[in-house]
Amino acid sequence: MQKRLLTASLCLSCLVLFSFTALAGSPTGQARSKAPSFAIVLASFGSTDAEAQKVQDAFLQAARERYAPTPVYMGFTARIVMKKLQEQGKDAPSLFRILAELGDQGYDHIAVQSMQVITGAEFEGVKQIATAQEGLPKGFKRVVVGDPLVASNEQAAELAHALIASLPKERKSGEPVIFIGHGAEGRGGLSYPALNWHLQILDPMLFISTVEGAPSMDDTLIALPAPEGKKLRVWLAPLLALAGEHARNDIFGADPDSWKSMLTAKGYECMNIEKALLSLPAVRELWFAHLDEALLSLGYEKK
Amino acid sequence: MQKRLLTASLCLSCLVLFSFTALAGSPTGQARSKAPSFAIVLASFGSTDAEAQKVQDAFLQAARERYAPTPVYMGFTARIVMKKLQEQGKDAPSLFRILAELGDQGYDHIAVQSMQVITGAEFEGVKQIATAQEGLPKGFKRVVVGDPLVASNEQAAELAHALIASLPKERKSGEPVIFIGHGAEGRGGLSYPALNWHLQILDPMLFISTVEGAPSMDDTLIALPAPEGKKLRVWLAPLLALAGEHARNDIFGADPDSWKSMLTAKGYECMNIEKALLSLPAVRELWFAHLDEALLSLGYEKK
Amino acid sequence: MQKRLLTASLCLSCLVLFSFTALAGSPTGQARSKAPSFAIVLASFGSTDAEAQKVQDAFLQAARERYAPTPVYMGFTARIVMKKLQEQGKDAPSLFRILAELGDQGYDHIAVQSMQVITGAEFEGVKQIATAQEGLPKGFKRVVVGDPLVASNEQAAELAHALIASLPKERKSGEPVIFIGHGAEGRGGLSYPALNWHLQILDPMLFISTVEGAPSMDDTLIALPAPEGKKLRVWLAPLLALAGEHARNDIFGADPDSWKSMLTAKGYECMNIEKALLSLPAVRELWFAHLDEALLSLGYEKK
Amino acid sequence: MQKRLLTASLCLSCLVLFSFTALAGSPTGQARSKAPSFAIVLASFGSTDAEAQKVQDAFLQAARERYAPTPVYMGFTARIVMKKLQEQGKDAPSLFRILAELGDQGYDHIAVQSMQVITGAEFEGVKQIATAQEGLPKGFKRVVVGDPLVASNEQAAELAHALIASLPKERKSGEPVIFIGHGAEGRGGLSYPALNWHLQILDPMLFISTVEGAPSMDDTLIALPAPEGKKLRVWLAPLLALAGEHARNDIFGADPDSWKSMLTAKGYECMNIEKALLSLPAVRELWFAHLDEALLSLGYEKK
Repeated sequence: MQKRLLTASLCLSCLVLFSFTALAGSPTGQARSKAPSFAIVLASFGSTDAEAQKVQDAFLQAARERYAPTPVYMGFTARIVMKKLQEQGKDAPSLFRILAELGDQGYDHIAVQSMQVITGAEFEGVKQIATAQEGLPKGFKRVVVGDPLVASNEQAAELAHALIASLPKERKSGEPVIFIGHGAEGRGGLSYPALNWHLQILDPMLFISTVEGAPSMDDTLIALPAPEGKKLRVWLAPLLALAGEHARNDIFGADPDSWKSMLTAKGYECMNIEKALLSLPAVRELWFAHLDEALLSLGYEKK
Repeated sequence: MQKRLLTASLCLSCLVLFSFTALAGSPTGQARSKAPSFAIVLASFGSTDAEAQKVQDAFLQAARERYAPTPVYMGFTARIVMKKLQEQGKDAPSLFRILAELGDQGYDHIAVQSMQVITGAEFEGVKQIATAQEGLPKGFKRVVVGDPLVASNEQAAELAHALIASLPKERKSGEPVIFIGHGAEGRGGLSYPALNWHLQILDPMLFISTVEGAPSMDDTLIALPAPEGKKLRVWLAPLLALAGEHARNDIFGADPDSWKSMLTAKGYECMNIEKALLSLPAVRELWFAHLDEALLSLGYEKK
Repeated sequence: MQKRLLTASLCLSCLVLFSFTALAGSPTGQARSKAPSFAIVLASFGSTDAEAQKVQDAFLQAARERYAPTPVYMGFTARIVMKKLQEQGKDAPSLFRILAELGDQGYDHIAVQSMQVITGAEFEGVKQIATAQEGLPKGFKRVVVGDPLVASNEQAAELAHALIASLPKERKSGEPVIFIGHGAEGRGGLSYPALNWHLQILDPMLFISTVEGAPSMDDTLIALPAPEGKKLRVWLAPLLALAGEHARNDIFGADPDSWKSMLTAKGYECMNIEKALLSLPAVRELWFAHLDEALLSLGYEKK
Repeated sequence: MQKRLLTASLCLSCLVLFSFTALAGSPTGQARSKAPSFAIVLASFGSTDAEAQKVQDAFLQAARERYAPTPVYMGFTARIVMKKLQEQGKDAPSLFRILAELGDQGYDHIAVQSMQVITGAEFEGVKQIATAQEGLPKGFKRVVVGDPLVASNEQAAELAHALIASLPKERKSGEPVIFIGHGAEGRGGLSYPALNWHLQILDPMLFISTVEGAPSMDDTLIALPAPEGKKLRVWLAPLLALAGEHARNDIFGADPDSWKSMLTAKGYECMNIEKALLSLPAVRELWFAHLDEALLSLGYEKK
């Protein structure tokens, strides 16, 4: 009879072993029916630029307030950014590591929000890392990845509206605005000309261009109305999550082949819109909306 | 001593068991170093339309001539198409089944060429089915999937050029041409407005539209120059691999909400370009180019 | 309004595309809630021996009667067996191909029963091939693999009882019986000494031995009681699914290093039990029991 | 021209992004050909017992000395152990988290050594967690998992020899020794009767038994020689990596259904061998040998 009790106590320790949930300290020991325990990770390339980091920290803070008491963390994907942040004494965990830490803390339903703009190689990497962790023994029960800014025509249309809503009041109707993104190889690269189309059916003087890829600077120069001796103001804006070196150098830089220099040389008057996408409240709402959708598919209910 | 021989003969049968290559009858028995044995599968949705089937069969025939003596087969993905073809007494294997038959025949390096137009859900399915078969015990050593028509900006530009090169001589400069595709949800849907951009930087009177999705018929009607009482010819063409029911009904049909009826009602004169993409030699070359690339990455060398 | 209808009809064809179930011809079109459609595949190494094939065919026939009207097929895993059967004009599909054919016929819940004896490399291959097919687009909803004969201590004990129940009446208590299996590398090889233990706690004169591996012939010779001049009968039986060349040559053969020759030379009187495991009703029931369990986990109910 | 340089610098940042190796600070920037960077993780269930922890720490220390300067860490798999260790202020990372930390430090070739005894569910979990991390973007290039103590007949034979070599000198020939393991469901459970066989062909008075499963305590009691009034010493030893609660209570405990109490009640004189497997130098060498093999397959060369 006591033998049986002994066996039962052994079984209990085996149960604990395979049940992830012991950590969360269910007082009844009913590990299997424990409520899901949610956490959020913002997966970002990151930036070594101090101003860009502030913008990102502000977004993280906004996310924490929005989803409190659910914990929200940042997980980085760029080795070089993590290295530089660590040299500055900051803890900059990779996406992999922050997921592992949340696992050790007992969270079992994870929403990973892609802070990317398009569904390029960087987003594929985030998805691959995040989903590899789903369903492992004693690990996460579910991991869902929220869409980047533009992963469908509906989202492209929403971004187009948000970009227009974010234009400075000083920009007059008819003045060209060029949103300059990074560009991408493969299928993700199609997002840029697609977004260009979505913008132009709303306002034909809005353009998407890229640092690498299509539409190229040359494509955009051809599409722009010529200044023809008159003063034509052209607005330049980053189509980047964060305004780091790409924005400062390639778009607004003093270098003769920056967008600004090239356009100025062709007779345009360049106006800077220095805020990147994560600084625009209307665009931030889109990322939050994608995160809301990811959380919804996890079965999350806002407290 | 004989014991040792016995053991050796047993080991041989085990070797044969795990070596896929015995079938191909290597006379030396050096199974491990056997030359790769290549086969090609064209993965197509298929069509129940007799004319469309002829076009598809002609493409299959062209592929067989181009890659002879490497075997080329068609594998279907639409259950309804396979069912109807089978009712007509034709063998219409699924992609899964034709792969299995090639496996039983001893082929171990397989190129699966997607006959899709864009990287939508249908293409994702082809890729998932094909790659699940790679590396299984006694199965394919490698399976590579060739891109559909448009999986990057470079390919979109190539398709734009091929579409222009395929226009009928009767189409005069300045006359609108609308290429009408299926449309897609999610990220694949972005291919259509992207392709619209690639066409319009070459000729602003070329338009992409879709049966479902963006650009919609309404989007395209707004973008078209108005007929303004004058006779304005508009050319309608399917942006579909095969011209089946979608082409016959939705584009050219007599129904009042077909493209043709709608445009005619608005005062345009509609001209039909009934050939679908698989009937256009310039476009067929693009599919072949993607297949060539897939074969190249398999280590295939044309005999 | 008609536009909406048109769109609906398009959506229907998309539904059909992604719904595997259209083939089964649900008259109501409620593809998603279609009842599961079951099929069974017996995954066997196969044999080139005519007698062994008859035994296997009889087992297949018994399975068909037992599970009618659910279809039951054989899928082979040995290339060399398939090749020889095909040369004899028989259709000997690989496991991969028979699965693909069942998929094309519209079955979506598949039980694959391993006809292996232990959980060795051959069983791992069956499991890998079978489970790679689960959940593919338009493919099987579920694939479950039934255990081989011995995949746990409980199953080893059941096999021990079944082997004892299958002993010929002529075998007298105290006479040694040696069941000779193939042997295996890696963890699967541990099944043989484990099974030896399970047999010997029931009858210490029952032995497991292997052609390659442990317990070896030498191990078994040491463990046998010595004949010591007296006539000691030893019974030899294959621990193989089918009695093919291994049984005929390695166990019962005239060759001086067959089990029979070796034991005879040492003064034992050898008695042949030529029936392999698939010929023993008590053992066949164990394979069926594992298949029943696989079907149960698929949600199958016997009609 | 400068445009080209600009593009080049952008490409560089992209390279860095996808190249895991930047962290390791290759001065030439030839990220692709960087030498592999090795690390070792010992994957252990862990123990909450202070003495067992010392044994484990000693093994970790021995591993660090043996493989220096390659870093060696412990990763735990039991939630309850990690929780208790953390309550004691110790850092007890899960296998998942220690892997993630090594990833963040730039290691790309990882050997995970299973500290399990057999290939049961616990080992399967270790393998699944470890291999899920292989080949992720910017992650580990290769992860190899070393065998637990017994994953083949060869390893079982080696363990049998090591156990015999580790017996106390006081144990006289003919005195039974019972090695008591945890037991396991499924195929892993077959390891115990298999190991019993390997021990008994060396010394028929050595027995394997389990807390749960086969051979059970009852099986072993039947197999033991009866004391028959005489004083018969029986040696009890844990077949556990660490001697924690199972050893203290189930084997040596004062409780009437511990092994010791049961055997004493039956008239045996019980002798304790309290050292668990990780305390036996000959057995530790076997774990190291499996780790050496894992490292070898990673291409590791001892410095």
